[in-house]
Amino acid sequence: MASGLHESCGVFGIFGDEHAAEKTYLGLYALQHRGQESAGISVSDGHVLSIYKGMGLVRSVFNSPDILKGLKGFSAIGHNRYSTEGESKIINAQPILIQFRGGQIAGVHNGNLVNALELRKHMENTGSIFQTTSDSEIVLHLIARSSEQEMVEMVYDALKRLDGAFSFLFLTPDKLIAARDTYGFRPLCLGRSGDATVVASETCAFDIIGAEYLRSVEPGEMVIITRDGVESRMLPQRGRRAMCIFEYIYFSRPDSIIFNDKVDKIRRRLGKTLAREAPAEADIVIAIPDSANTAALGYAQASNMRFEIGLIRNHYVGRTFIDPEQGMRDIDVKVKFNPVTGVLRDKRVVVVDDSIVRGTTLRQLVKIIRGAGAKEVHVRISSPPVVSPCYYGIDISRSGELIASSKSVQEILKFIGADSLAYLSVEGMLSTVSDSDSFCTACFTGEYPTPVPHNYDKMQLGLGKTNGCV
Amino acid sequence: MASGLHESCGVFGIFGDEHAAEKTYLGLYALQHRGQESAGISVSDGHVLSIYKGMGLVRSVFNSPDILKGLKGFSAIGHNRYSTEGESKIINAQPILIQFRGGQIAGVHNGNLVNALELRKHMENTGSIFQTTSDSEIVLHLIARSSEQEMVEMVYDALKRLDGAFSFLFLTPDKLIAARDTYGFRPLCLGRSGDATVVASETCAFDIIGAEYLRSVEPGEMVIITRDGVESRMLPQRGRRAMCIFEYIYFSRPDSIIFNDKVDKIRRRLGKTLAREAPAEADIVIAIPDSANTAALGYAQASNMRFEIGLIRNHYVGRTFIDPEQGMRDIDVKVKFNPVTGVLRDKRVVVVDDSIVRGTTLRQLVKIIRGAGAKEVHVRISSPPVVSPCYYGIDISRSGELIASSKSVQEILKFIGADSLAYLSVEGMLSTVSDSDSFCTACFTGEYPTPVPHNYDKMQLGLGKTNGCV
Amino acid sequence: MASGLHESCGVFGIFGDEHAAEKTYLGLYALQHRGQESAGISVSDGHVLSIYKGMGLVRSVFNSPDILKGLKGFSAIGHNRYSTEGESKIINAQPILIQFRGGQIAGVHNGNLVNALELRKHMENTGSIFQTTSDSEIVLHLIARSSEQEMVEMVYDALKRLDGAFSFLFLTPDKLIAARDTYGFRPLCLGRSGDATVVASETCAFDIIGAEYLRSVEPGEMVIITRDGVESRMLPQRGRRAMCIFEYIYFSRPDSIIFNDKVDKIRRRLGKTLAREAPAEADIVIAIPDSANTAALGYAQASNMRFEIGLIRNHYVGRTFIDPEQGMRDIDVKVKFNPVTGVLRDKRVVVVDDSIVRGTTLRQLVKIIRGAGAKEVHVRISSPPVVSPCYYGIDISRSGELIASSKSVQEILKFIGADSLAYLSVEGMLSTVSDSDSFCTACFTGEYPTPVPHNYDKMQLGLGKTNGCV
Amino acid sequence: MASGLHESCGVFGIFGDEHAAEKTYLGLYALQHRGQESAGISVSDGHVLSIYKGMGLVRSVFNSPDILKGLKGFSAIGHNRYSTEGESKIINAQPILIQFRGGQIAGVHNGNLVNALELRKHMENTGSIFQTTSDSEIVLHLIARSSEQEMVEMVYDALKRLDGAFSFLFLTPDKLIAARDTYGFRPLCLGRSGDATVVASETCAFDIIGAEYLRSVEPGEMVIITRDGVESRMLPQRGRRAMCIFEYIYFSRPDSIIFNDKVDKIRRRLGKTLAREAPAEADIVIAIPDSANTAALGYAQASNMRFEIGLIRNHYVGRTFIDPEQGMRDIDVKVKFNPVTGVLRDKRVVVVDDSIVRGTTLRQLVKIIRGAGAKEVHVRISSPPVVSPCYYGIDISRSGELIASSKSVQEILKFIGADSLAYLSVEGMLSTVSDSDSFCTACFTGEYPTPVPHNYDKMQLGLGKTNGCV
Repeated sequence: MASGLHESCGVFGIFGDEHAAEKTYLGLYALQHRGQESAGISVSDGHVLSIYKGMGLVRSVFNSPDILKGLKGFSAIGHNRYSTEGESKIINAQPILIQFRGGQIAGVHNGNLVNALELRKHMENTGSIFQTTSDSEIVLHLIARSSEQEMVEMVYDALKRLDGAFSFLFLTPDKLIAARDTYGFRPLCLGRSGDATVVASETCAFDIIGAEYLRSVEPGEMVIITRDGVESRMLPQRGRRAMCIFEYIYFSRPDSIIFNDKVDKIRRRLGKTLAREAPAEADIVIAIPDSANTAALGYAQASNMRFEIGLIRNHYVGRTFIDPEQGMRDIDVKVKFNPVTGVLRDKRVVVVDDSIVRGTTLRQLVKIIRGAGAKEVHVRISSPPVVSPCYYGIDISRSGELIASSKSVQEILKFIGADSLAYLSVEGMLSTVSDSDSFCTACFTGEYPTPVPHNYDKMQLGLGKTNGCV
Repeated sequence: MASGLHESCGVFGIFGDEHAAEKTYLGLYALQHRGQESAGISVSDGHVLSIYKGMGLVRSVFNSPDILKGLKGFSAIGHNRYSTEGESKIINAQPILIQFRGGQIAGVHNGNLVNALELRKHMENTGSIFQTTSDSEIVLHLIARSSEQEMVEMVYDALKRLDGAFSFLFLTPDKLIAARDTYGFRPLCLGRSGDATVVASETCAFDIIGAEYLRSVEPGEMVIITRDGVESRMLPQRGRRAMCIFEYIYFSRPDSIIFNDKVDKIRRRLGKTLAREAPAEADIVIAIPDSANTAALGYAQASNMRFEIGLIRNHYVGRTFIDPEQGMRDIDVKVKFNPVTGVLRDKRVVVVDDSIVRGTTLRQLVKIIRGAGAKEVHVRISSPPVVSPCYYGIDISRSGELIASSKSVQEILKFIGADSLAYLSVEGMLSTVSDSDSFCTACFTGEYPTPVPHNYDKMQLGLGKTNGCV
Repeated sequence: MASGLHESCGVFGIFGDEHAAEKTYLGLYALQHRGQESAGISVSDGHVLSIYKGMGLVRSVFNSPDILKGLKGFSAIGHNRYSTEGESKIINAQPILIQFRGGQIAGVHNGNLVNALELRKHMENTGSIFQTTSDSEIVLHLIARSSEQEMVEMVYDALKRLDGAFSFLFLTPDKLIAARDTYGFRPLCLGRSGDATVVASETCAFDIIGAEYLRSVEPGEMVIITRDGVESRMLPQRGRRAMCIFEYIYFSRPDSIIFNDKVDKIRRRLGKTLAREAPAEADIVIAIPDSANTAALGYAQASNMRFEIGLIRNHYVGRTFIDPEQGMRDIDVKVKFNPVTGVLRDKRVVVVDDSIVRGTTLRQLVKIIRGAGAKEVHVRISSPPVVSPCYYGIDISRSGELIASSKSVQEILKFIGADSLAYLSVEGMLSTVSDSDSFCTACFTGEYPTPVPHNYDKMQLGLGKTNGCV
Repeated sequence: MASGLHESCGVFGIFGDEHAAEKTYLGLYALQHRGQESAGISVSDGHVLSIYKGMGLVRSVFNSPDILKGLKGFSAIGHNRYSTEGESKIINAQPILIQFRGGQIAGVHNGNLVNALELRKHMENTGSIFQTTSDSEIVLHLIARSSEQEMVEMVYDALKRLDGAFSFLFLTPDKLIAARDTYGFRPLCLGRSGDATVVASETCAFDIIGAEYLRSVEPGEMVIITRDGVESRMLPQRGRRAMCIFEYIYFSRPDSIIFNDKVDKIRRRLGKTLAREAPAEADIVIAIPDSANTAALGYAQASNMRFEIGLIRNHYVGRTFIDPEQGMRDIDVKVKFNPVTGVLRDKRVVVVDDSIVRGTTLRQLVKIIRGAGAKEVHVRISSPPVVSPCYYGIDISRSGELIASSKSVQEILKFIGADSLAYLSVEGMLSTVSDSDSFCTACFTGEYPTPVPHNYDKMQLGLGKTNGCV
């Protein structure tokens, strides 16, 4: 349970369907796990773009049938956003819809540009203004500044100036353009639903509308979808492929295909490999639900131990208003997880989790599991220690927060209070994917596939403090 | 996934804790699965009762720290309600707080009285007025009409007139009274948290506040909690013990103890017994998540097959606003569940569910599982066919909606489109509990442990149509 | 501006109109000044009563067209409530809809019973329970306890036991019953709209739907409206007529007819009489807007001085969140009123207000008027000093708050800081109405037309502290 | 009652007060009549700007004390916005806060630029992007594109490129800049509150915080407020002075000073001049409340007739949900206004209104006044016929909607159904102000003081359809 690690966004687009807004809405429902702070849809009727966005879950933003009915058109893009800054701002909700010399264009984005600050400072110095801290605004500025005349060329011209992680969708009155950076950091899938073409961060968004998966949008590929069909062109190569392996470890849903492989399959292999690398003398295997379930199943299978449900997760939780001075410690973990005593009592338990960020939640869970009578608690992590920050769209805010960046495995074991602790090795992790050279392992190894932005700090972008619904 | 079967309520009470309201709030969080329509807390400061209630989840009703701070006192009762009538009415939210000759009293209730209509008609005929359709209002009327002079005697006098299912909590300025009908239909547990005494529908509400489980409130027991301690007295016996076995099958959380036994343990036995009674030639066992997980684990263990996660449940879903004419059929099931293709493809799959009500959801799920490539789909139900309505607090509205009341197992199999279908037998089910004579099996057998109310129809209670926030 | 004096409620009813709910909604709009805390409508389709109510203004409670569409029927009653207790409780919102032996009945109420506590204690002692502090609940209990068999007789039987102020409307599936106490404290008007019969607290509610005013419901009259027509019968006389003269002074809208006379006419006479009794050597006459406008016009006319608009009232104000420690004193008055300097500068100003309760607002206004340059400020009050509490539905909470109950006119003058102060005399006030013996002047004279309830304190009703949306 | 004429905005700024946000909030309260669609405040703590804005009234947007507490700083600007486009968009709410090469700057705006489209198209063609349709965004782009290096020079450079109506406030970390176009279309006042300097659209915003009025910001003046004091410089002259006379006729509050004169004084003169130009043989003078009150007082005084309150305005109204097919015609007017029969019956009535736009409301009011028994109805309008659209910030959407642009006074009289109708002459109107050459009369005469934008249509700005909270 990678609490503390957050994906930035989910994107969905569809072209050529008279219910474009409704299907985008359903697609966003399926991608809700990728972002819960804001949701939005922009739609084209062939002439004009419409937009609706708001703070909160898809179900909260699109909370009346009239909203969807008002979004008429045959093409649409949608976005779920997770706030990487801990700030709640409608101004950063996507899509961003602009008017420029080329007419209207709306954009949505998943990822994080490493040359955002540099591009932005350059544009500020030459007269641009910025109203958000979103990378989408940067690329829309680049599009508007392009010396090209055709929309597709303008977008291409803008995209080739970007470095870092991006899966972009752009909507214009008559086109849907999807693009993925040449490293291939974030997933983006292409599908078909009747006569319509669809794109989404994960294929679970295709399943919900009965669309068929065709293939990944390739790293560096720009897909242009119009009434005339689907065209493809490639962005100039920037570096090696560097797909985010954390998508397999934690972010994507197990029922999705991303990077042309099934998440469930890879995640299960992570668990199996972990079992081989770090076996445990124990009676049962449990997962920290729900994210570690699949890896735990793999661990159990490879180690020939029984998989059990030892923790029940409460899905109704929200913010609790308990004054910490009232002596109800660890209450946020207790509200979320409760042990199944009958499963745990007198058992030697392997607890599989997908990753450790700060370790505080895991420490509380180990205590809870022991409190339910477990004789031994062996923690197994289905990924290597996270030691370095991510610049490509995952919110691991500061190195200082990463327990593994300052503590040894032995020290972490002591901190969480388990009987044993083992991580999957980097090699073991890479052995689970088919083309192991094509993945980014920077957060585990500190080896970044792009130039690392110096003085990386979003706050330098300088839009200041904002409150509430701004 | 017993969609269509709904528990009526969860109750929680605490006496002797300066943070009574906060702990009740946490207890209600843990009991949220027992009712999501409204939530409320009443608290006593020793002199006066305060109350706060509203429509929605606990987190929505108690959505600011000021609300809890305003509920000062050392004893409290709380309630989560599920609307059995499909009506959304604040008037029916509990606790109900009244003023009568004995002073103030607040009550919360889980269950359903079979002589409610009779009692109510009698009281109406002798001059009482009813503002709600709640059984709590009936018993509060009985208390007020008692010829006794002491509060405890008045409550006892009222309770002995009730027939049917009830787990009541009453709060007065200086007392907390818990009572359970003599059949013992609905669970009610007694615990201890420091110097405070706690009562709750399930022990998961104890775990969240670190309270210790002592025992069940016994069938027919009335527990009176005051500053002087805890006293107990018994209501006159009405009939045989008839604890609701559906609490083990579906309603209660697997991490709870109810009826003095662990839910997880019994639920796992149901799966194991099902495996022995109805084995299947298959490759993997999956559950309809999350309610059938434990039974599926038991089935897998007993049949020595691999338990797998074949369906992913989306926990973010709310009401969707998709016009059914847009050709997106089965969308509510698809929004909620998505298959894991890699798990299901080319597999012979045992699908374990806890019960079948109308069968429509299961039919869609079988189609989804087949669509993901499963070679065979063998449905196994960890309870017998539900053929009769429940009069004791479970919402199986009409016999006509129960597929098993009009169709044979063979016909149901055809309807859901699986390759095989088997239910657990009544005997098999009863073999999983320690004292099998003490359970109610009416919904499976039509043998009711109480007189059956004739012309049973809540609408006869006649408070008419109400809308919105009434 | 009688800040501190609040009317309890406005009522509206209609029988025989297929748009009963819509017209009741409009009627409540026109009666909004009589109560802003909650609003509700109950409607009958001939068989079953429906209800919708909520906290807030009519426009906030009935904030979607679906709500009105859901209230189908040909007869309806509605209610606007002002909280006399400073408590915000949905439980006290009206109509109150009950089920009793006679079937369904809903009731709304304007006024205050002086024997409420006595009746209630008696009913509590003989077994009744109370869920609200509303007089409507008391009378519904009395109806249910009546030994009569016919609905009309039961209502009659209940009403004749009441003492104090009431204008009641009752809705049953096939009847609308309107009743006014024999003193005639609160207004209630009868009208006609096409084939439909309408009743309302004031005739401004008739104007909005184009209904024609017929006459007042007479003191002690009970009007029974059915498909067969309108019948009338009289309650047994309790005492002399005692219509609330404050309805003319302040509460009712000047465009209404109440007590068979035009509010505007009487209110203007109050101003004229005041001018004759207490002339002032001045240049202009201004009102504290808007309630004193009409009296000021009368004063100006009778004294042959110019009426001017010297204070502008801001109608957008709500609760301000200014910390009083920030040195912005009198901010609530300043947010509401601003002087027109050009009107006031170097003028000797007569300021007409309708009454003084605590005097604090008036003191601030005198300061504001002086600050705008007025040379002299002569305050004239179009009613006598308020010295005694009202038991008949006006919220003058405690005698202690009434400045005139402890201070002489000279002392009040000093307190408010004006150059002169004069009140209208009781005789002058009574000279403005046609039948001066028929009015209640208790708040000015302490002579109560009913027995005065001893130990009058609503809090004794004892429903305790309630919070939020209870 | 110029229904159909809407002012665009109110602005407020303060520099040098530790309660800058609270005072801005109060100032916006006083300016609420200038815009009700959205409200926002930006504040500086000397280093960083903060912002909060939302849809709705000031009291709805700033609805908790925490919001104001979160806006810490010693200088602030605020804005109330009226949507001139009938679109409800948070994106267009002001202030707009941007980051550019010069750092942070926030801007608010009242008015309308006539070269907005031209400027915008030019900027779009040279690479700018636009996220709103607001003129504030245009000027912020101009500031960012300036070749100057100092903030004040950049703002000056931007402002001198603007043509049309503007009263701008800009906030930077250490400065507050106020500027008014050289025509002087919209008001902007300068004041002092202790050590702080304040600016506001109208002086009623000074009164509420106890600030002292100093003078108007002069047409073409740019006022730079810093810790070092207040400096002033002038923009290059564009044309003759052209202050909006409609501010005196209708928009501004009568208790305000604008353009260095009292609104009440001028508005009263308009009524007096109207009385001399267009006397009426009648008994009483009434106003359409509240906007025509002052002019009606002037008319009554000059014609030696009695001023009466003949229509009561309901201030609680909101959107009604009455289906127009239910035969309740003119319901929106009836909900808002009700006649005082006793005032009007058998009287010859002069009805003073400030202007006529479409004439439909006035027609209904004439009918209502006749329905209340008036013998004769003589309509007098305290401004000339509105025949031309306004390009300077008043929302008279299309010439086609202006009844006077296609109908003669005689035809309008017939349309509204009065006994006589007279408008104030342009000469008469101009005689009421001290420097009659300095005012804009374009909407009455079609003589525009600026180049008229051809193809003027905001929709050309092309941000497309937006819904809800975008």
